[in-house]
Amino acid sequence: MFRSIALLALSIAMCIAAVAQTADDSIPASTNLPSAQYPRIHPDLRVTFRISAPNAAKVQLVPGGSDNGLGQGPFDMTKDEKGVWSVKIPPAVPGFHYYWFTVDGLPVNDPSTFTYFGWNRESSGIDVPDKTLDFYDVKEVPHGDVRIHPYYSKVTGKWRRAYIYTPADYDRSANTRYPVLYLQHGSGENERGWTSQGRANFILDNLIAAGKAKPMIVVMENGMVAARADAAAMPAASNQPARGNEAFEDVVINDLIPEVDAAFRTKADRANRAIAGLSMGAGQAMQIGLRHLDKFSSIGAFSGVGIRNFDAKTSFDGVFADAAAFNKRVPVFWLGVGSEEPARMTSMKTVVDTMKQAGINATWFEAQGTSHEWQTWRLSLYDFAPRLFRK
Amino acid sequence: MFRSIALLALSIAMCIAAVAQTADDSIPASTNLPSAQYPRIHPDLRVTFRISAPNAAKVQLVPGGSDNGLGQGPFDMTKDEKGVWSVKIPPAVPGFHYYWFTVDGLPVNDPSTFTYFGWNRESSGIDVPDKTLDFYDVKEVPHGDVRIHPYYSKVTGKWRRAYIYTPADYDRSANTRYPVLYLQHGSGENERGWTSQGRANFILDNLIAAGKAKPMIVVMENGMVAARADAAAMPAASNQPARGNEAFEDVVINDLIPEVDAAFRTKADRANRAIAGLSMGAGQAMQIGLRHLDKFSSIGAFSGVGIRNFDAKTSFDGVFADAAAFNKRVPVFWLGVGSEEPARMTSMKTVVDTMKQAGINATWFEAQGTSHEWQTWRLSLYDFAPRLFRK
Repeated sequence: MFRSIALLALSIAMCIAAVAQTADDSIPASTNLPSAQYPRIHPDLRVTFRISAPNAAKVQLVPGGSDNGLGQGPFDMTKDEKGVWSVKIPPAVPGFHYYWFTVDGLPVNDPSTFTYFGWNRESSGIDVPDKTLDFYDVKEVPHGDVRIHPYYSKVTGKWRRAYIYTPADYDRSANTRYPVLYLQHGSGENERGWTSQGRANFILDNLIAAGKAKPMIVVMENGMVAARADAAAMPAASNQPARGNEAFEDVVINDLIPEVDAAFRTKADRANRAIAGLSMGAGQAMQIGLRHLDKFSSIGAFSGVGIRNFDAKTSFDGVFADAAAFNKRVPVFWLGVGSEEPARMTSMKTVVDTMKQAGINATWFEAQGTSHEWQTWRLSLYDFAPRLFRK
Repeated sequence: MFRSIALLALSIAMCIAAVAQTADDSIPASTNLPSAQYPRIHPDLRVTFRISAPNAAKVQLVPGGSDNGLGQGPFDMTKDEKGVWSVKIPPAVPGFHYYWFTVDGLPVNDPSTFTYFGWNRESSGIDVPDKTLDFYDVKEVPHGDVRIHPYYSKVTGKWRRAYIYTPADYDRSANTRYPVLYLQHGSGENERGWTSQGRANFILDNLIAAGKAKPMIVVMENGMVAARADAAAMPAASNQPARGNEAFEDVVINDLIPEVDAAFRTKADRANRAIAGLSMGAGQAMQIGLRHLDKFSSIGAFSGVGIRNFDAKTSFDGVFADAAAFNKRVPVFWLGVGSEEPARMTSMKTVVDTMKQAGINATWFEAQGTSHEWQTWRLSLYDFAPRLFRK
């Protein structure tokens, strides 16, 4: 009897605790300012956003883009008696998402988050955790640095800067030389993207510590050199790559590679140089990589390919015309996409199928459940990087 | 005759050109996003700000703080027929200034600038050039990197990151060891401040290239570890340093210094270790430096000192009681302030005068024409750094 009552009391206590835990189980996002309590992520991945705007008549939460993992916005927010607007949105897709608010029509950032360069400006961002993945977490493994490295560009006539990841043992092994991956962001982003949003340094730290990827240097520069108008002028049915990126191509070939090979202990040959990028950067990786196979041996295209109608004989100046020669020359030729970006999936698959029919060894990757967002590109890098520099 | 007409025509043409040049002579600020045309700085250092807010009834430009070099705001802005608000403010003081807008009472950043961490959040900022100074320009000299360096803090139980400047020859001289300056930001800022706002890396590049400063490593961490409430609780008439910064002090002594000495080629003795900071960071530099003279030999306090009523016999645990011993032990003991921050000038001078009367060798510096802003601290670093590590 006592035992039953004790058990009952315990049950009630546990039940109360469970309710209390549910009520309190939301956590501030890791992308918030240090003491900012909102946005908060609930255990079911619903997210509550808040902004104080006592004088406003209408406030909305705006996810960055139609394929944003926060869902189809804008979301109307409701005002409390203190003038704080809030909204709790349905469960979000894990990963990093850009967003902002509109306050009576004016786009404003959430003052509670750090800013992340996207959409051609400093934007608010939220990282929704995925409990099933830890490959981009900061773990108790040796860590590399990301160096902000200034250099002068003769092409642009200006000082530029690259973000350059050096692996953890770079400073401990003074005579070791490393292969280099050139890794590009997407349109409207910049050289900070792969570190701040992509967590490329932690992905590489973890892969290298686990022995899954070769220690490598990763060079991340700002690809927004050419006027974007040029890229938009690409004919819809072209079977040649976009030609709007010549300025950035020239920066990479004439300024950046010589700088990196002079300033860092690189293995400065094509076998030890790869290029990859996401979206617009995928097109740049294809264009720059394929036009300079004397400089690069491996290429990765994440959620983009930079060409519409692929022709194995003529596209990219005919570099694929001899498939056997291409396969030997390019040990890693990798294309990937998120399962939730159907238009890009279709267009990229068409290109890849045509390549495969022509006998070209193209590695195809699909990130499950993710869209045209950083989670797809984190997963892409995690699959791509271990394949590099094996020969 | 022909010649006169030709000269007249030339004069007219030059006159038109001059007018046109004056009209066009404003330039986008260097702190703007790459293609943003506003804010624009005029030759007389007046500045025009703009923001599109068609639905707003009242928009103001708000300089960050009452001693901001943009002047005493807020400045009312006026709306054009397209809903673009603008204001042209009187000549600004050269240097970096935080600012934002209020749109119908809501504080919002200028979407046209990069963001700079200040006022406990991402803020807009503008760098107003000083044509008489070039010591913080990016010049054609060898450049060091600023490394984003992750490390684990046992004190906080969390991963942290430091921004660490390594001088240009660090990677070229694999066996050289370097002295280290620990350099702190002010309240509401973070580890990015001395690079983004302060341009410490370029100041050191230029000093080192000119042979004016010893090549050194500069470690910049986030000093906002302790609750600021602790610091505010400091008694107004205390003759002891603020004790609100213990958590950061513990991070520096127990986590950061061991990490830096393990991960970098440092000269790991007190003679080759200095600490300095600005405003709140000046108080931290004084407190941490003076309480750990076994670890630090030189101290710099920029626009702050962290103590109210200095007593040479008892303050800072009596470390100044034997002036001769102190002078021998601390080769660089440096305090500086901007001429346009009169309250701090007075309180710091009182401390320094008391120190000097007690026979303590304190170097005193006044930045001319600048206030409690980054221009004062750039000038402070430029004066302070060359004095370090000479013995």
